Amino acid sequence: MSLTDTLAGIVGAAHVITDPDVLDGRSVDHTGRYRGHASALVRPGSADGVAAVLRACRDARAYVTVQGGRTSLVAGTVPEHDDVLLSTERLRDVGEVDVVERRIHVGAGATLAEVQRAASTAGLVFGVDLAARDSATVGGMASTNAGGLRTVRYGNMGEQVLGLDVALPDGSVVHRHSRVRRDNTGYDLASLFIGAEGTLGVITGLDLRLHPTPAHRVTAICGFDDLDALVETGRAFRDTDGIAALELIDARASALTAEHVGVGAPVDGAWQLLIELASDTDQTERLADALEDARLAGEPAVGVDVGAQQRLWQVRESVAEVLGVYGPPLKFDVSLPLSAIAGFTAESAELVAKHAPDAIPLLFGHIGEGNLHLNVLRCGPDAECELYAAMMELIARCGGNVSSEHGVGTRKRDYISMSRTEADIAAMRAVKAAFDPSGYLNPAVLFA
Amino acid sequence: MSLTDTLAGIVGAAHVITDPDVLDGRSVDHTGRYRGHASALVRPGSADGVAAVLRACRDARAYVTVQGGRTSLVAGTVPEHDDVLLSTERLRDVGEVDVVERRIHVGAGATLAEVQRAASTAGLVFGVDLAARDSATVGGMASTNAGGLRTVRYGNMGEQVLGLDVALPDGSVVHRHSRVRRDNTGYDLASLFIGAEGTLGVITGLDLRLHPTPAHRVTAICGFDDLDALVETGRAFRDTDGIAALELIDARASALTAEHVGVGAPVDGAWQLLIELASDTDQTERLADALEDARLAGEPAVGVDVGAQQRLWQVRESVAEVLGVYGPPLKFDVSLPLSAIAGFTAESAELVAKHAPDAIPLLFGHIGEGNLHLNVLRCGPDAECELYAAMMELIARCGGNVSSEHGVGTRKRDYISMSRTEADIAAMRAVKAAFDPSGYLNPAVLFA
Repeated sequence: MSLTDTLAGIVGAAHVITDPDVLDGRSVDHTGRYRGHASALVRPGSADGVAAVLRACRDARAYVTVQGGRTSLVAGTVPEHDDVLLSTERLRDVGEVDVVERRIHVGAGATLAEVQRAASTAGLVFGVDLAARDSATVGGMASTNAGGLRTVRYGNMGEQVLGLDVALPDGSVVHRHSRVRRDNTGYDLASLFIGAEGTLGVITGLDLRLHPTPAHRVTAICGFDDLDALVETGRAFRDTDGIAALELIDARASALTAEHVGVGAPVDGAWQLLIELASDTDQTERLADALEDARLAGEPAVGVDVGAQQRLWQVRESVAEVLGVYGPPLKFDVSLPLSAIAGFTAESAELVAKHAPDAIPLLFGHIGEGNLHLNVLRCGPDAECELYAAMMELIARCGGNVSSEHGVGTRKRDYISMSRTEADIAAMRAVKAAFDPSGYLNPAVLFA
Repeated sequence: MSLTDTLAGIVGAAHVITDPDVLDGRSVDHTGRYRGHASALVRPGSADGVAAVLRACRDARAYVTVQGGRTSLVAGTVPEHDDVLLSTERLRDVGEVDVVERRIHVGAGATLAEVQRAASTAGLVFGVDLAARDSATVGGMASTNAGGLRTVRYGNMGEQVLGLDVALPDGSVVHRHSRVRRDNTGYDLASLFIGAEGTLGVITGLDLRLHPTPAHRVTAICGFDDLDALVETGRAFRDTDGIAALELIDARASALTAEHVGVGAPVDGAWQLLIELASDTDQTERLADALEDARLAGEPAVGVDVGAQQRLWQVRESVAEVLGVYGPPLKFDVSLPLSAIAGFTAESAELVAKHAPDAIPLLFGHIGEGNLHLNVLRCGPDAECELYAAMMELIARCGGNVSSEHGVGTRKRDYISMSRTEADIAAMRAVKAAFDPSGYLNPAVLFA
């Protein structure tokens, strides 16, 4: 029996797709920049189905690449080995919200937006938000430990996960759930699967933590002439009570985006910082007090009602999508010590000028975590390879990490040793071998 | 060459101790309740020394049990196999505080109190506090993912760890550090070592996160006649802005302790709840407002200055030690869903009455996490075994975990399957085998 027939026996023929057009569409990353090749797409409808598919593929010596919402920014779902694509798209149950314990159980294929809506309907909020919310699945977000716009307040995706269902490469299913928050009964396996980019198992379901909705919210955009002054203000706000967002935007990226969505520039200055405080009590006055000593380029734009706040967020929310209009940008996602941010910004611009003179480097990111997204517009394929390698070297030299929140995927596997030591990588490989000795699951990501 | 000679060659003869009196003293848990036997005590002075000791012991087929401050409440450092005791007591460097990135690097053998002092001198606070602060080492606390009095605000020990140095069972040393907070470059190995109770490697050094010191603090003890009313108030405060402590104390435990330290009862009622709020702004009024609807047994005792706050904390701080005066209590450390706490409390008292009629069950704990410490005073060794097993069964039935913050150690290894599934334990064993195939490191803990 062929593998395709075996898979059809497990999930039903309708959920094993070999149509070349469909496979083609699933074998490219969402920017259209990176492409691979797949042999089949299989869509199991349960955790046990996922496990059975894994076992069948392992026994047939087929490679498997897992796909969620396919919003990876490091081409983490592009199949390189004529893989079977295992999609979580049918695992999208969204359970009831437990308002007492503030949690919800959802299938790995549920989108972020679906979870956010369920939380909101119960009067609660989910702790992670990011622009790809309508496509990104919570399974993929846990597998990559996604960050986003609220990390400064609630932490990353991993910090929202209270329990996991995971189908392991050997075809068993681990259910790791606890009705309570404190649990010191052995290894924290959940943390191992979070950020493992699907190399150790396939997350099929999650218990997610929800948070109370703050009663008051105030948002401001502050302009700065000097990046150091912005970083200084960011540092002061980073750990302040009630901090809810702390976003950097390059004024050039902001202007391009504002023009595209048809709004004006909110403030003067070469750099903009979006600050949001959210709390049980009104923080408007505290925000103004805290900004008194900041070296601003002019008056900040402050939003105290929802409409004004949405207008202030509009540019930051749209920036990644709008920059894509200029062709798929070359993306760098880096974490830096706050003290290195201004130096990195200047040096990275020089690198771009050297390797790709016509390209435009634009920055935005989450300053609370020192997490910068450098987007290089109009970087041709000729320059890409050299620029990428040079940038990785610069990041390492600045004391940063080659991946901050996008993961390693296929794009950064050659650079992982810039962030991790040899013994550390050897330990990672030992863990991989313990779970997946033949290395058939997500073979293209993480390890070079 | 004997193993002792080999070890002396690595760490120096002065640091390999075979004196039977010393070994006897190190082979018993600190309550004096559980005892084992050791062949030698070795005290390496560096991470490389620890790694070399491990390699030598592995090659000599000797078992190794790691010891930090030996404050385990689950007899986690009692050697059961004539083990070599590896002590981290010489790894106690306390580095400079980095006030910009709010972090400090310390040796695994540094005590919690030493880290707290270093943080305080730099105007910052460390996020974990517990009564054994003068003995407990940060290495042991990370290995057991210790909780304590501040979990409701800052999380557990694991959430304070930004980087680790770990000597692995194969004699290599992993340095996993990052100068920045966001880091998505491969497996979160640090999280695997945290809570692994030394079975996967020996933590030798840690980068620890520090927090800003809140400018204002207000503390209250509230009395309740009814445990459900206390739980309801605890739930309301659990996720409130600025919550800094939320501690339950059985009024009988409080009275015993108060008498012993020579203070009066702070409030009326059968159950007491210590609430602390800490923030940039004064929270006294907010606390009073939030207590308006609480079903209190009488007026709360409120402390707004440091002296009054210390007096309010005194009973909670001393309770574990004072109860020890009545002989080593039989200790249960459990997490429960808030909805199950009142039921568990009644049923556990019945179990004690049945199995050990002369014993006295007393409760205290961290209500924010549903974490109860049930201390059974005057439980004789005859009743212990049956009562322990019956209590574990009750905990599982109530939807709780058999270990909340003390870990599994040797005491609870037979009960781990009440909190984890078969596939889950199999995955844990696979990880253990990947790091320590011969199983020589901390052989008595975690796995039955």
